[in-house]
Amino acid sequence: MPAPGSILIEDATIVTVDPRRRVIEGGSILVKEGRISEVRSSRIQSGSSAELKIQAKGMALIPGLVDTHMHLAQSLLRGCADDLSLVDWLKKRVWPIQAAFTEDDGRVSAELSMLEMVKSGTTSFVGVDVVSRYGFDGIAGSVVKAGMRGALAKSIMDSPGYGRKGRIMPEGLVEEKGATIREAKSMVRKWNGINDGLVRAWVAPRSLGGCSRKLYEEVGELAGEMRTRVTMHLAEVREDVRYAKRNFGLTPFEFIQKVGLAGPRSLFAHMVWLNESDIRGVGVTKSSVAHCPSSNTKLASGFAKVPELLDAGANVGLGCDGAPSNNSYDMIREMKLAAVIHKARLLDPLTMPAASVLEMATINGARAMGVEKEVGSIEVGKKADLVLVDLKKPHLVPHRDVVSNLVYAAMGSDVDTVLVDGKVLVRGGKALTLDEGRILGEAQRRQDELISRSGVKL
Amino acid sequence: MPAPGSILIEDATIVTVDPRRRVIEGGSILVKEGRISEVRSSRIQSGSSAELKIQAKGMALIPGLVDTHMHLAQSLLRGCADDLSLVDWLKKRVWPIQAAFTEDDGRVSAELSMLEMVKSGTTSFVGVDVVSRYGFDGIAGSVVKAGMRGALAKSIMDSPGYGRKGRIMPEGLVEEKGATIREAKSMVRKWNGINDGLVRAWVAPRSLGGCSRKLYEEVGELAGEMRTRVTMHLAEVREDVRYAKRNFGLTPFEFIQKVGLAGPRSLFAHMVWLNESDIRGVGVTKSSVAHCPSSNTKLASGFAKVPELLDAGANVGLGCDGAPSNNSYDMIREMKLAAVIHKARLLDPLTMPAASVLEMATINGARAMGVEKEVGSIEVGKKADLVLVDLKKPHLVPHRDVVSNLVYAAMGSDVDTVLVDGKVLVRGGKALTLDEGRILGEAQRRQDELISRSGVKL
Repeated sequence: MPAPGSILIEDATIVTVDPRRRVIEGGSILVKEGRISEVRSSRIQSGSSAELKIQAKGMALIPGLVDTHMHLAQSLLRGCADDLSLVDWLKKRVWPIQAAFTEDDGRVSAELSMLEMVKSGTTSFVGVDVVSRYGFDGIAGSVVKAGMRGALAKSIMDSPGYGRKGRIMPEGLVEEKGATIREAKSMVRKWNGINDGLVRAWVAPRSLGGCSRKLYEEVGELAGEMRTRVTMHLAEVREDVRYAKRNFGLTPFEFIQKVGLAGPRSLFAHMVWLNESDIRGVGVTKSSVAHCPSSNTKLASGFAKVPELLDAGANVGLGCDGAPSNNSYDMIREMKLAAVIHKARLLDPLTMPAASVLEMATINGARAMGVEKEVGSIEVGKKADLVLVDLKKPHLVPHRDVVSNLVYAAMGSDVDTVLVDGKVLVRGGKALTLDEGRILGEAQRRQDELISRSGVKL
Repeated sequence: MPAPGSILIEDATIVTVDPRRRVIEGGSILVKEGRISEVRSSRIQSGSSAELKIQAKGMALIPGLVDTHMHLAQSLLRGCADDLSLVDWLKKRVWPIQAAFTEDDGRVSAELSMLEMVKSGTTSFVGVDVVSRYGFDGIAGSVVKAGMRGALAKSIMDSPGYGRKGRIMPEGLVEEKGATIREAKSMVRKWNGINDGLVRAWVAPRSLGGCSRKLYEEVGELAGEMRTRVTMHLAEVREDVRYAKRNFGLTPFEFIQKVGLAGPRSLFAHMVWLNESDIRGVGVTKSSVAHCPSSNTKLASGFAKVPELLDAGANVGLGCDGAPSNNSYDMIREMKLAAVIHKARLLDPLTMPAASVLEMATINGARAMGVEKEVGSIEVGKKADLVLVDLKKPHLVPHRDVVSNLVYAAMGSDVDTVLVDGKVLVRGGKALTLDEGRILGEAQRRQDELISRSGVKL
């Protein structure tokens, strides 16, 4: 009699991303009650009674990818904000369009983002969203329905003045509903840990100058008391450094250390403009960094010093950021960019080898989310967040160094099957929990209406 | 009665890449006798008698992509040479493996490279290959069978000493058969212009120091007399500049100018290490450049000054280089990398906008090959080298700025249909002229045997 919910995957090239970086050819894996119960280089006898059997010859089995910095509500802005100066990008496009969002826009944007993520092998994400005008409940509800593992980080702020990109925020944004610490608390109380722990609720100070000293301290207290985490954009553009120097006499990271937010429960996105002392500080405090190579290059923020951060002992994951700054939510593409740009910057072909980049996209990302004991590698006892990548493609043949092929040659579309928490979300490249036809149609219609409502001329 | 060979494509988003950069929504195109006979924003009445009708709603129709620098015979080295120093990359991997090539290895490698190219929308390429041990006829024959538009550039050399990557070549390579000017002539005579002009035969001096002064002059004469073109690697790594200074007292480009090879019939790959005077010289001489962003970053050659070259009036196309240096032959991926890395280097989000990058990948590439009057844009009278990209994908929705979506968000796997010279080479994502099953199997088997024969330990 089949064991309910058990899954056997046979004959795969298992890329464990375990501490020994083992790759197992012809490997099998058994999943029971959502967890990996066996990993073998040969047949698993007890697997014969599994409810679902997947023959994975010619496929790589990898840990689900973890996107440590993305914006669920930005996929509706795809194609609306490209090749612009930062000021125009924000003031003429991103802000006015986001200001016109309805709750349904927020919900369908989250669905579209998740559809793209899960189909390209991402199983976990940190979604940072303003959720001011477009609601948190709709977005959180869609994450539950999709079955993904997501930390939803709610933006909060209490000060006017300094926007996310080192620019003045439009006045209205300061007043927006839902951006207060009180609302953050009620959101964490309501959503943190639901759906068997798949959904987490975090707090995201909106920008260096968008929060008062008091708010930073309250955020630290909230995170400690409510056992949740903090993420924020930091040192993304050169203006951030100038702002912090002028206002606090400190670097952005020094300021964050001073208000007590540096540490292993904090995740800082971008971190492009760090000096040597900052880099040591990130390592010493065991803070996590979300490196977003597409966004940092496309928006001309600069090249983050990622090899230097890794050398300093920092935990660095990868992030796709948003559709206006990337323009896709595809971690496989992000791996390649992360692997190559630092080699050219340092004129060093040995830096950022493929295996390290794959770790960034998996186990480092899991650590940044505080779930490294549950996911991020293929090891007995861990949750089954797993991805099968079809290697029977011209760009992945010959099959020799599977890690090189995954990082330097694979595409998001090579993903065949995706499991989160032992549940099948994608099979044969088709999403099972998200209705692709409906989402694509609704996203197109809603973007058309949104642009028209916003008054933005494209 | 249907007009034989005529093709009607209806209801596409036509991205013309013409001088006005027109994008036509709901556009139709009629192909007759291999050429574009009509382009309209409405139905084409006379199209009703077309032999093949393609309904392309939800698809972008773009000019076929042109890869201006790639190595047909290197796809068999995929996964064999990653994350190594240049010396190890060449001496421990690329050279010894290539030295063990048989003619069948060369042929199947070319087939695999073309399979990947054509399925990801590349219709034309400049293939630079040593073809010493693995034969020219097998490779050229496979290009004819595939039906692609290809310039096959045969490497020649006559001097020991200075290898392609600024390193000493192994002694044996100097003596290899087929690397002489005499053999280049017979190859050009045999293959240049065959298959209705789809196949061209060019000459490729192997490296700055691999050719004598006399050989450079003979190459110039050969190109003029036989109406063909010249391509070579130039100024790829910093060592190239040091070598040229030491041996000639000139920069690499100055030396090439002096021997008479700069000009509109020459295509120089990489061109990473140029000074300001070189950049002006490239523009003034109307030389073409093959920019290879994946290769330059992965091999840590550096960042080529592409916006500066474009500003100086140089014609810059894009190239994927080889499987050990990229590791894929996917021009769509190459477009994104070209669009983003220079923004970060110059801290300028306005440089390398999507439309310019698409021109690099199409019309600039065609100009670099000397076929800009025949292909590279969608205009009446041009040859039908056309690609349909399926936009009904999560990462390409919403459909608003199609050029942004193509450059920043599309994947090679979004390619649905490919025409070269009016013949259908890919339909519904399936290659019609190349036998994918046989090629993938043979490539795997031959690489296994090749590595074992080469004695290289991986």
